[in-house]
Amino acid sequence: MTERGAGMATDIAEQPEVYGKLLEAPSVAAIEQVARAIAERRPKHVVFTARGTSDHAALYAAYLTEIRLGIPAGLASPSAITVYGARPDFSEALVVGVSQSGGSPDLTEVLKIAREQGALTLAVTNNAGSLLNQTAELTVDVAAGHERAVAATKTYTAELLALLLLVEAVKGGGTVPAEERAALAELPALAARTLEDETPAQLADRYRFAGRVVTTGRGYAYPTAREAALKLMETSYLAALAFSGADLLHGPLAMADPDVPVLAVLGTGPGSTAMADVLHRLGERRADVVTIGSGQVAEASARLAVPAVDERYAALLDILPLQRLALAIALGRGENPDAPRGLKKVTETL
Amino acid sequence: MTERGAGMATDIAEQPEVYGKLLEAPSVAAIEQVARAIAERRPKHVVFTARGTSDHAALYAAYLTEIRLGIPAGLASPSAITVYGARPDFSEALVVGVSQSGGSPDLTEVLKIAREQGALTLAVTNNAGSLLNQTAELTVDVAAGHERAVAATKTYTAELLALLLLVEAVKGGGTVPAEERAALAELPALAARTLEDETPAQLADRYRFAGRVVTTGRGYAYPTAREAALKLMETSYLAALAFSGADLLHGPLAMADPDVPVLAVLGTGPGSTAMADVLHRLGERRADVVTIGSGQVAEASARLAVPAVDERYAALLDILPLQRLALAIALGRGENPDAPRGLKKVTETL
Repeated sequence: MTERGAGMATDIAEQPEVYGKLLEAPSVAAIEQVARAIAERRPKHVVFTARGTSDHAALYAAYLTEIRLGIPAGLASPSAITVYGARPDFSEALVVGVSQSGGSPDLTEVLKIAREQGALTLAVTNNAGSLLNQTAELTVDVAAGHERAVAATKTYTAELLALLLLVEAVKGGGTVPAEERAALAELPALAARTLEDETPAQLADRYRFAGRVVTTGRGYAYPTAREAALKLMETSYLAALAFSGADLLHGPLAMADPDVPVLAVLGTGPGSTAMADVLHRLGERRADVVTIGSGQVAEASARLAVPAVDERYAALLDILPLQRLALAIALGRGENPDAPRGLKKVTETL
Repeated sequence: MTERGAGMATDIAEQPEVYGKLLEAPSVAAIEQVARAIAERRPKHVVFTARGTSDHAALYAAYLTEIRLGIPAGLASPSAITVYGARPDFSEALVVGVSQSGGSPDLTEVLKIAREQGALTLAVTNNAGSLLNQTAELTVDVAAGHERAVAATKTYTAELLALLLLVEAVKGGGTVPAEERAALAELPALAARTLEDETPAQLADRYRFAGRVVTTGRGYAYPTAREAALKLMETSYLAALAFSGADLLHGPLAMADPDVPVLAVLGTGPGSTAMADVLHRLGERRADVVTIGSGQVAEASARLAVPAVDERYAALLDILPLQRLALAIALGRGENPDAPRGLKKVTETL
């Protein structure tokens, strides 16, 4: 019998290698081919559909699509189509299903209907033989290899990187620009360095008896906040509430007090600036704030340090210490994050 | 000095009257005029933008738009535009800002940019003189009157009803069909009857010492679950986690145990059927489930009863006992829901 959490620990540790593999010429070439098909079709809007962890990768891709490509993008709820029988006119749309397993019947149904309704369809999965891949016109394989734990880690970051490469290739007219390739080539080493920091294990003790935690971030950092919350729920059974920095101020801030730890993903660039007011307001409520990112913040009681990179890339590094934190809290509580109670690896919803 | 919570109690009690007023001929005619302008323009997709409570009304409207009109619809994050300077091509889009106050600078900025980028723009607010109204090409006044408490109640349900009327008027080619008008005319009386039930006050005692609560629903019932969670956070400082029924099964289910109360909004029709598996899985985890809706469920330990109506209308009734529950829990905990700590009525985010 293997050690508790050994699977999740291995999955987490493999992420630098997964980045390296996705950045190799054949993977990039395959993604560029998909990008050319999208660029030719010139969709007027992009609809992402996903569940769970993959939904956070889709959210990241929606920000990239709007900011980098100037194409309106949003996340669709599968249930409008699968439960209520909606048949939207997708003739000007690219519809993208993101799924680690590619085995979710509702996403497959959405892509099938979207294709019938005129959409260009794309499946982004870690399972090239999946039903979702067979249903979509275009496919991207995130090639993260077998994931051991039920809680997704390396498949999440592989989805992020594959979607980043795809968007930059569409922007580049079908090719990821050389300077982008050069900058991205640093990622595996930066990820390895981020994973060396032992602060997550030390911090885990601090949250041993926390009943709830708030995670927050803005823009590119918001998907990281959402994914961190899901990891903490899945592995450590914490009530983890994720809010965009702006939404936090619209109500949930009232809940913050010295008993509620806050994990604030700062990001870099404009998203980081936008978080300043949020941190100030959290400080007024005497919330206990731990920051994630490259910057120092006066209000914070601790920090998970991550190397400074372009804000688009930060999502690929910021989540790493948070995955380790979730793993360490779970182990500290005597749980087994490789097989959380009540969960299966492939979740089938209709 | 007025009694704690008197403002919120009055706001809640006024909802049947607000429904009645919105359903009068002049309000409906004003909404139909906006619907005609939208029907003429034939947008290829609809982008909603909103914060906090209004975001849940926008989510409801997105479901309606896809299911009733067959037009792809999604919720946009303002930050892509306001923080990162994205300039999406909105030439085929209707962009709708939903805001109680119409005073949020980020939503105003999104509508301004969207209009410059070719969108047809619409402001749905409770403040006809607001900056958001001045920025948009089209406006809908939800006419809920002055709201006393910081936590929004009657402005939320007024937004729901105004958006429902708008979608049905677009579907009807610029007129709300007579049979729809007739069915909606029952709503004020049904709302008044729903508000007479004293179960929320009795249930509040049950949650006096709960640290966290999960709310869930699918499709049309999901915005209700989200809004109930926000009310509980704002007024009672509970850690309230909202999940679509499907997303709950993708991870957060692991967190459910007998110590975590679950408020399950059943809805009627297809959404209700889709919740059956969710309730079964919650039962396996021995979660304490309270249902909201017209149906009886074996797994439930208690029920907030709501009259049976078309699933589209259920959102206008299901939230009522949940607002009262939030108010009663807040009062039971000695809080003042009219003025939650750390919050203001108009939240200004950038």
